[in-house]
Amino acid sequence: MAIDVPVRPLLVPGATIGILGSGQLGRMLAMAAARLGVKCHIYAPEPGPAFDVAADFTLASYEDEAALAAFADKVAVVTYEFENVPARAAEVLAAHCPVLPDWNALATSQDRLTEKQFINSLGIATAPFAQVDDAGSLARAVAQIGRPAILKTRRFGYDGKGQTAIRDGSDLAVQFRSLGGVPCILEGLVPFLREISVIAARAADGSFAAFDVCENEHEHHILAATHVPAKVSADTAAQAIHIVHRILDGLKYIGVIAVEMFIVEEQQADGSKRERVIVNEIAPRVHNSGHWTIDGATTSQFEQHIRAICGWPLGSTHRHGRIEMRNLIGEDTNLWRDLMGESGACVHLYGKHEARAGRKMGHVTRILPEE
Amino acid sequence: MAIDVPVRPLLVPGATIGILGSGQLGRMLAMAAARLGVKCHIYAPEPGPAFDVAADFTLASYEDEAALAAFADKVAVVTYEFENVPARAAEVLAAHCPVLPDWNALATSQDRLTEKQFINSLGIATAPFAQVDDAGSLARAVAQIGRPAILKTRRFGYDGKGQTAIRDGSDLAVQFRSLGGVPCILEGLVPFLREISVIAARAADGSFAAFDVCENEHEHHILAATHVPAKVSADTAAQAIHIVHRILDGLKYIGVIAVEMFIVEEQQADGSKRERVIVNEIAPRVHNSGHWTIDGATTSQFEQHIRAICGWPLGSTHRHGRIEMRNLIGEDTNLWRDLMGESGACVHLYGKHEARAGRKMGHVTRILPEE
Repeated sequence: MAIDVPVRPLLVPGATIGILGSGQLGRMLAMAAARLGVKCHIYAPEPGPAFDVAADFTLASYEDEAALAAFADKVAVVTYEFENVPARAAEVLAAHCPVLPDWNALATSQDRLTEKQFINSLGIATAPFAQVDDAGSLARAVAQIGRPAILKTRRFGYDGKGQTAIRDGSDLAVQFRSLGGVPCILEGLVPFLREISVIAARAADGSFAAFDVCENEHEHHILAATHVPAKVSADTAAQAIHIVHRILDGLKYIGVIAVEMFIVEEQQADGSKRERVIVNEIAPRVHNSGHWTIDGATTSQFEQHIRAICGWPLGSTHRHGRIEMRNLIGEDTNLWRDLMGESGACVHLYGKHEARAGRKMGHVTRILPEE
Repeated sequence: MAIDVPVRPLLVPGATIGILGSGQLGRMLAMAAARLGVKCHIYAPEPGPAFDVAADFTLASYEDEAALAAFADKVAVVTYEFENVPARAAEVLAAHCPVLPDWNALATSQDRLTEKQFINSLGIATAPFAQVDDAGSLARAVAQIGRPAILKTRRFGYDGKGQTAIRDGSDLAVQFRSLGGVPCILEGLVPFLREISVIAARAADGSFAAFDVCENEHEHHILAATHVPAKVSADTAAQAIHIVHRILDGLKYIGVIAVEMFIVEEQQADGSKRERVIVNEIAPRVHNSGHWTIDGATTSQFEQHIRAICGWPLGSTHRHGRIEMRNLIGEDTNLWRDLMGESGACVHLYGKHEARAGRKMGHVTRILPEE
């Protein structure tokens, strides 16, 4: 495969990388970087758990162009723990040092419409969708997609925020206004059997590596648990990984990506059933459903991302056993005493002060014998 | 087993622990603490790789009593990455907060004579030894132990420093002076088959957990490689672990310890041979021969130590496969590019600036299928 990225020198151990965001993903990225002798400088508008494990930090807003420029001048490459990096911030940073994954990946995944159009352009299936710019276009979209459907803001949605269900009898104008009157898309409901994700990486030389397919359980729109391997056929798993490979090549991506997908069951002409993979959404970053790789794989998703953005080879994605990862959300964190006493439970706590409802406080990974 | 330590509250996640020493062991302890939501404050007389991953640090000498006191007031417990903590520093710290492992363990292992006397007092074998305070007592010691033998300073020796071989024709007065004229011991040479170590932990409630026995290769008195499991019989492995259990109970120890041992082959009366375990030395801390546990065991030695000093249960010591750990010493660190490209090699670099000869720059762990 041709090298399709700008030639730049490999980083060497001892280099400093910059990370936008001070949350648990930034924290786990910083710890993975440290394993490889790479220093981290965290940039965030508020202090967070990543500050405690980084060599340096900048506390400033994503609109503070002078602070962004000073930060970018001190690091060899900038990466991020979330996809909603403001366009202008990415532009300012990129004028000073490489930002990886690049703006193309950020822009594509920041907007649900652009993202789905890009995926479809590769010949990969998504849920049916329609653009919604106002109450009038919502009515046309509902006529096209049918009810029930989900109205989602095109930008800034996560963990079920920025979305509302359109059911029979819903008042479309009220629903549209409830999301702030911003540009939206309407998505058809997919009657899925399973929710899966693939965590994969693409290196600067175009090489690709995927972890085994994850099966995810959500509660109240928040990831509750991940099981690996997913209970899908070998063909389906290969199909899911192939889809992610095409997405990464399509974006000329460098780094770790997470692609969330649905498995639907389709009736064939001969009456038999087969599994089909539909892409739900892309997260151009390390992902909660890949946290099990810290304990359960030879290389963690965090180390894999650091390797990719440093221009180094990808590591082995070999899995140590059957995996169950469970998030500790809000008050779940009070289980820490019991979990510490459970033989074989790998406990991770993110060092957050306040256990607010819905807040991801930590996770626990169990490595079980293969079935 | 009775709880034989002063009752003190368990730490809770979010607490800050103090670590004396800014080297790679302090660094890996800090990273293990962070996984569990515990913050670290490093205290050291010079900056080192642990500073880059800790929430806070104090740069001051171990003689600066005001700095020690201020540090100890900010942390819930103090631990250390090396055994040569000055007695007065330990005393100052202990007046402010618990120091674990405690002074008893430090004092015993800081002095080779005290250490061997303690081990023998438990009925556990060591190499033959004799106290040497001057050239005259060296002559008597040589008459008792025989030649060849090793003259070692009682204190501050590591990686082959502070020792010299006494051979036929050695000038005893010159040799004694070559070590600075300080108190020494003379140790008989043990014709060992293998060098092994056991990394084990004892919790505040007296419970005990050991990792599988490690087999070590030294080059120029510095650990070059560790293989796990050691090529010893199941009986010998059990004997080695039992020895360590007795040492930990004898010291009423809290934390991770490393005990280096020799395996010697003894001819029995009936002509058969059997393996015998002789203790070489104790390190009252995490140890280089346990670095493989980061990638190769459910709980790392670093996490195990944090669990113990926080008053939490010990974690599972389950091993993921056959282990080979190799140190990257001095210029070995230039192999990093090749190692990053080797599938399954878990590479660790300590972030040290200068690759001096004999300096531990990193290590690589390979997890192989069981034989």
